[in-house]
Parts: sequence; C-alpha cells; structure tokens
Amino acid sequence: MPLGIGDDCALVRPARGEDVAVTTDFSLETVHFLREMHPPESVGHRCLARGLSDLAAMGARPLAAFLSLAVPRELTLPARSGRSWTERFLDGLLALAKEWEVPLAGGDTAESPRDQAHDSGLVAADIVLLGGITRNRALGRSGARAGDQLCVTGALGGAAAQLAALQQDPKAFRTLVVSSPGHPHLYPQPRLGVGRRLVAAHLATAAIDISDGLSTDLYHLCEESGLAAEIDSAAIPIHPLAHKAEFAGGTGFAPGKGLELALHGGEDYELLFTCPAGKRVPRALAGVPVHRIGQMIPKRRGQPLVTRLESAGKRTRRFPVRPSGWQHFL
Amino acid sequence: MPLGIGDDCALVRPARGEDVAVTTDFSLETVHFLREMHPPESVGHRCLARGLSDLAAMGARPLAAFLSLAVPRELTLPARSGRSWTERFLDGLLALAKEWEVPLAGGDTAESPRDQAHDSGLVAADIVLLGGITRNRALGRSGARAGDQLCVTGALGGAAAQLAALQQDPKAFRTLVVSSPGHPHLYPQPRLGVGRRLVAAHLATAAIDISDGLSTDLYHLCEESGLAAEIDSAAIPIHPLAHKAEFAGGTGFAPGKGLELALHGGEDYELLFTCPAGKRVPRALAGVPVHRIGQMIPKRRGQPLVTRLESAGKRTRRFPVRPSGWQHFL
Repeated sequence: MPLGIGDDCALVRPARGEDVAVTTDFSLETVHFLREMHPPESVGHRCLARGLSDLAAMGARPLAAFLSLAVPRELTLPARSGRSWTERFLDGLLALAKEWEVPLAGGDTAESPRDQAHDSGLVAADIVLLGGITRNRALGRSGARAGDQLCVTGALGGAAAQLAALQQDPKAFRTLVVSSPGHPHLYPQPRLGVGRRLVAAHLATAAIDISDGLSTDLYHLCEESGLAAEIDSAAIPIHPLAHKAEFAGGTGFAPGKGLELALHGGEDYELLFTCPAGKRVPRALAGVPVHRIGQMIPKRRGQPLVTRLESAGKRTRRFPVRPSGWQHFL
Repeated sequence: MPLGIGDDCALVRPARGEDVAVTTDFSLETVHFLREMHPPESVGHRCLARGLSDLAAMGARPLAAFLSLAVPRELTLPARSGRSWTERFLDGLLALAKEWEVPLAGGDTAESPRDQAHDSGLVAADIVLLGGITRNRALGRSGARAGDQLCVTGALGGAAAQLAALQQDPKAFRTLVVSSPGHPHLYPQPRLGVGRRLVAAHLATAAIDISDGLSTDLYHLCEESGLAAEIDSAAIPIHPLAHKAEFAGGTGFAPGKGLELALHGGEDYELLFTCPAGKRVPRALAGVPVHRIGQMIPKRRGQPLVTRLESAGKRTRRFPVRPSGWQHFL
C-alpha cells in the first residue's frame, strides 16, 4: 500500500514478513504494439497486464504500480472522440488496475524522444510493479523436481490467433475498448488469483507465466530446474480462437494449426506450474480451469529438453519441441 | 538486498520496520541528453544519479536498482574504441552503482522503437530505485514549519554552467569518461550520505533534491509545506564554474550570472532542507558542506512565495524569485 505520492519518492509498505517482488516491462511502439492496430485502451491494459502476470507467476499480491510514459505531444491532444490517445491509454491501464485493486502510485511522464531529422516521436511506456510475497514462499522457476506434474491454466494459443486475425485486418478491433476475456491478445487476463492460491495451498514447486509461448517458457522452466519435460499433445488446452484458426487461413483447412499456436504462440499470460507427484491438481483455481499436460523428467544427454507425445490408435510417437515462441513485431 | 534475478520478478528484502521508497526516472535522448554531446558513461551515470538523488532527498538507503533500456541496434555494436555505446553507458551506470553499493537487480532491454518512415531509433532509459527507510522517518516536502532554517548542501549552478560550456563546444568533454566531482553536469554526485545523516540526527523537517533549480524546487517545498521562504543572496553558495561563467560569456563580464545560475540552473542534485529554528546546522554533513541560506516564513496574501534579500551597505532590498528552473532540451 503506497503511503505517499508527489514527493521525491513514493512509499510502499509491505506486510510484516513479506519480501517485495519487483518487475519492470518496457512496452515500445513498433516493438510491442502497433499504433494503427491496437486500440489505446488495449495498449494500456497490456502494459499493466505484463507486469501483473509476472507478479502472478511469483505468487505475489500487487502492492503498487509505477508508470513511466513518453508520448509524442500530438497524442496528448483530444482526438475526434473527445479523448486523447494518452487518456484512452490510461483508461485501459486504470480499468485493469481497479479490477485488481493496484494503486498507480507514481511514475514519470515526458514528451517522447523525437528524431531531429523529422518531426515524429514514438510511444514508450515502462511499467514497474511491486508485489508482496511471504518470505521464502515466492514461486521461482528452479524448484521443479523430477516426477512433478506439469500444469497450465486457461487455454493456449488464443492471443497468437487473435494477433494473426488483427494482422489480416488491422482495423477490425479498433472499437474494442473494453477488457474482455474473449480477446486474449488485446485484453489478456493476468492470473493473480491462481498464483495466490498456488502459494496458499502449497500446490506448486515452480511457476512461470507463458508470455513467450509454452515451448519457450517450458524451456526456461526446464533449464532453471535442471530437468527435462514431456508433454501430452492431447492434453494441451487449445483456445477456441486457435482452434478456429485451423479453418480461417486463406489456404483452407490447416490441421494442427491450433496445436502449433498453443505450443508456440506467445502472450497468453497463463501460468505454467509444476505440482508434486502425489498431489491432486484441482480442476480449477480461483475460477480458472487447470489442466495437467505432462510431467518433469530427468535430463538425458543427447535428448531434447522438451518432448511431445502424440497417440494415434495404439501407437505413441515422440516429437522434440523446440523453443520457438513469440517474436517482437520488429 | 535483492534475493533473486532472472526469474519472473526480483525479490527485495527491506530491513524490519522499513518502508520501501520507490522512484522512477525516464532519461530520453534529445529530451534529457544529446548523444553528440554527452559521453555514454555520463549518460549512464546521470541516469542512475537522478534516482539516487530522489532516494537521498527522502533519507533512504538504496536497496536495488532496475534498468529498462531501449537502444537502437547500432549502439550495441563495438565502436572504434572497441566498446559499444551501450557497454560504455553501463560502465558509467555501474561505476556509480558500485560507489554506493547499489545492486542492479534486474530490468528489461529492448531494441529501440524505430520510426517506420526511416531507419533510426533513439535511446530511452528508465531507472527504478528502491530504498529502505525506517517507518515514519522519510523526509517529505511538506514538513517544514515557519521559522525553520533553510539550508543547502554543496554549491549551486555548477551543472548549468558546465552545460552552457558544453553547448558552446559539444565535443569538449567527449573524452571525460570517469566520474569526477569537478564536473557537476556530466557526473553529478547524489547526496545519499547527507540524506541518511539528516534522518539519523533528526536535523530536517523537510527535504527535496535540487533537480529543477533552487528557485523551482524551493517553490515546491513552499507549496507542499504551505509556507513562504526568504533567502539571503549573499549566503547562496555559488559553484566555482558558475562564478567563472561571469567572465566566460562571449559578451564580456556578466555580473550576477553566477547567482542567476545558482538560483535557476537545474540538475545540481544538491539537497535543500529545512532545519528547526533552535538546532545548530553543522558546517558539513557526510563530508559535504552545508550552508544556511534563509528561512521559512508564513505565507502572506499578495506576496510572492519566495523572496530574495540583497544587502548593499546599510540598505537591504527585497526581490521576488520566480520559479524558472531547468528546462528539457526539447
């Protein structure tokens, strides 16, 4: 809870016995979003959601957010709608902050750097989140053990599927200015409730948020824990929008497209966590479905860190999974 | 002290009974620095110094720094010197961090946003500082009382004087890559030791760092404390470089130029604080000279918030001081 604002510093008071989790995320125009494609409310929402998702992956509760924002001067002026780009950006950010009761406790604003050769500037937003986490209870990436069950929340591939749809038709969602769980790219939902439940119920040995795609973030988890993982293709929860993408491409039916998006599409902001072998994994945590998709196994020399099992009839085939998650727009 | 890095969040552990002070500062090319004028080491040093100075003004001890850095790709490549711009930026930042034992605990890096119309990007660096401060002991801006003595550390106007010299000859200091107290614009020294002493010795009722110039920051202090202030022109410590500026202009001798720079020049990062009327103000704190320059007085309707007294013989004249501190380069 912040005690002061408008002074040289803001003051934040963690609860007794709590460590402070800190995460910073830059959101840069042309790198993380495109002004002609993303509604300003979505840019603000996604900016805060990235940081909240990092807190969720640690099992922390949000204490305060700080925003450093650089915008070109013209984006501070009212547009035809009566509100400026910057106001609409803050609308989106503050709506999500209100939902999770995160005070925006300070930050810094500046006119966007402008190239001297011509008259333009780009948006740069840096979000800082502070969270409280009971000492020695933070969910790291390195605590998984061989035999642990591998679980994910929600469904995967939706953000990448919606991004692909947006890239096909950049103006399709310009009017979508309110947070909605049906729009996983524009309005991703951080899994703070899940993270808190994982800590409270001692359910997880390690956790990470799926920001770069399941394949890439599972690699991180394996590397940090010194283990390998195998996942069951049929168990991976595929987002309806990713399923739909199998039929929506210009080249007709694309079988396996949904699974590909679920494996490698980024920015789903679901949680990937490991649960001790003996424990029952609940079907849902904090209202979010949970699926067991595989298990952690010992590393073996010459074997890929992540493999995927696919069954057809009585036969099970094994495929290596390479980390090939989300790429920047640039 | 940070416990973890490379995870979803870094963990910071304040001491028992400490609040966490948080400050964020954007440093933007063309706004806060010019690449053709500032050595990269100076840009890195100044980036961290701004945040450390905010902690100093609260009386906090640094716990951890977080850097979000966006740079154009070409600045990550080795230059003729063998080191890239980015490496030299970090050299400057880390040298100051080492001096004050501040761990760089995390952050985010990205390729700089690049205008699609042409092939260029600008540097944007956001620094976040966390500090520990004993509960209810932070030095705010609003605690000054009428009758309090008004004091400053160090000497003023040096940063503005050096900036003016740099603007006359942008290449003059390109080779100055090491922190030096004789270069107040390129390598300002945060007054962390002073801030800590002010708290420990119960010497200050309010404090602020002089980042925007004495005139502007004293206005902030007056406004936040609901008071006015009067300062004694002869008591204001003028930096030698600001004195020198009286003789260095192209138009010959400029009497009063030193005082003008001391009043309105920004980025000195000295501390301005108020000390209860009865207390003896030490001549130095943590090795930094301290000068009493005036006092806090009640606000009076129709009177300027800040006035300056100037004595000539037996006569004392009173001038209003307008807040006209440091301006961005843009």
